[in-house]
Amino acid sequence: MSPEARLAELGIELPAPPLLPFTPRLRRLLVHDGIGYLSGNGDITRCGRVGDDVDLERAREAARATAHLMCRTLREELGSLDRVERWLKVLVLVRSAPGFGEQPAVANGFSEAIVELWGEDAGLCARSAIGVAELPGGLAVEVEAAVAIR
Amino acid sequence: MSPEARLAELGIELPAPPLLPFTPRLRRLLVHDGIGYLSGNGDITRCGRVGDDVDLERAREAARATAHLMCRTLREELGSLDRVERWLKVLVLVRSAPGFGEQPAVANGFSEAIVELWGEDAGLCARSAIGVAELPGGLAVEVEAAVAIR
Amino acid sequence: MSPEARLAELGIELPAPPLLPFTPRLRRLLVHDGIGYLSGNGDITRCGRVGDDVDLERAREAARATAHLMCRTLREELGSLDRVERWLKVLVLVRSAPGFGEQPAVANGFSEAIVELWGEDAGLCARSAIGVAELPGGLAVEVEAAVAIR
Repeated sequence: MSPEARLAELGIELPAPPLLPFTPRLRRLLVHDGIGYLSGNGDITRCGRVGDDVDLERAREAARATAHLMCRTLREELGSLDRVERWLKVLVLVRSAPGFGEQPAVANGFSEAIVELWGEDAGLCARSAIGVAELPGGLAVEVEAAVAIR
Repeated sequence: MSPEARLAELGIELPAPPLLPFTPRLRRLLVHDGIGYLSGNGDITRCGRVGDDVDLERAREAARATAHLMCRTLREELGSLDRVERWLKVLVLVRSAPGFGEQPAVANGFSEAIVELWGEDAGLCARSAIGVAELPGGLAVEVEAAVAIR
Repeated sequence: MSPEARLAELGIELPAPPLLPFTPRLRRLLVHDGIGYLSGNGDITRCGRVGDDVDLERAREAARATAHLMCRTLREELGSLDRVERWLKVLVLVRSAPGFGEQPAVANGFSEAIVELWGEDAGLCARSAIGVAELPGGLAVEVEAAVAIR
């Protein structure tokens, strides 16, 4: 089943990206030679520091919401999610309180949302999860990714 | 207009990279299959923590200086900036004080320097901006990038 | 001399990756179009904060151990290290105490282990080293990488 068909079956609505209070000088998606590079993205309605004012479950939800924001970007830029042949690599940045070390569990919220739509063969990919001090606008989670485009 | 022509027109001098007090075991630029991978780079004359002893404007200047350092590397390694067909992806790391969330504004200093030379079509690319705890030698800003080579 | 031959000559045993107390939803290595993307990896027997309870020398050893863990992954996934034509890019994340700025010296521990096996031509690559607040499970060092596969 294609990602678009699966999305419809699950009844998932892809959220509109929020209007930012600034103009980042970037492309949300740059495609070159069959690879799509997705800019760092996050859900600005979910801010805070994970392990402090954001707990693990809410951080996973922020990661899942970020997956859907990226899907929205992919659909707007490519016309359809079905043009994404497979996910190659994601970098998951978790704004972490001192001593918080469960970044992989947070990142699973992103990966599971992608696997739900693309399946394991095309959705599971290389991944790094790290804890950073600060993220734009106080985001709890930011993700950047590379995908193969057909 | 080509990046080299534009550079001459604007009268921008590309700075020489500083002599480092250590030997990093890396290539400044590795080219493989038409993609150039640029190592993390930053201006060691601009150190400090952004949002603390470095303000936003000086951080933007550090990001802009880093763009010119990378251009110097590209020219030395490739012979001419004109061999860079387009910028693909940049990761901008901002050494951030607690609560500083304007990493995208800092990163714009880098992106605008690149767009000045390559234009929007070839210079605007995928980008992530994050706040990190520490950078080599106390750098305020470090950037790594990937470019397409012709 | 091939990396496998060199490994045997040096008598290096590649460590088995540890059993993790969680299931990260990722591929340790994803190969697409001749590029291998290696997930972030680190040695969970070497935790702590560099510049605080982990000193520079132990951090370099953690980086070296991570290189060997990645080689183990490459051999398990590809059958032989000799299928790695060259290293393209590594991102070295060092969990850093405030004021610690020697991330490149830590990263050299990784790079030197790779150059020992592949030589400078194929082993030296683009690299970024940064200091992050937290890493999964309290790792001192985490590395992600991209390699060219033959």
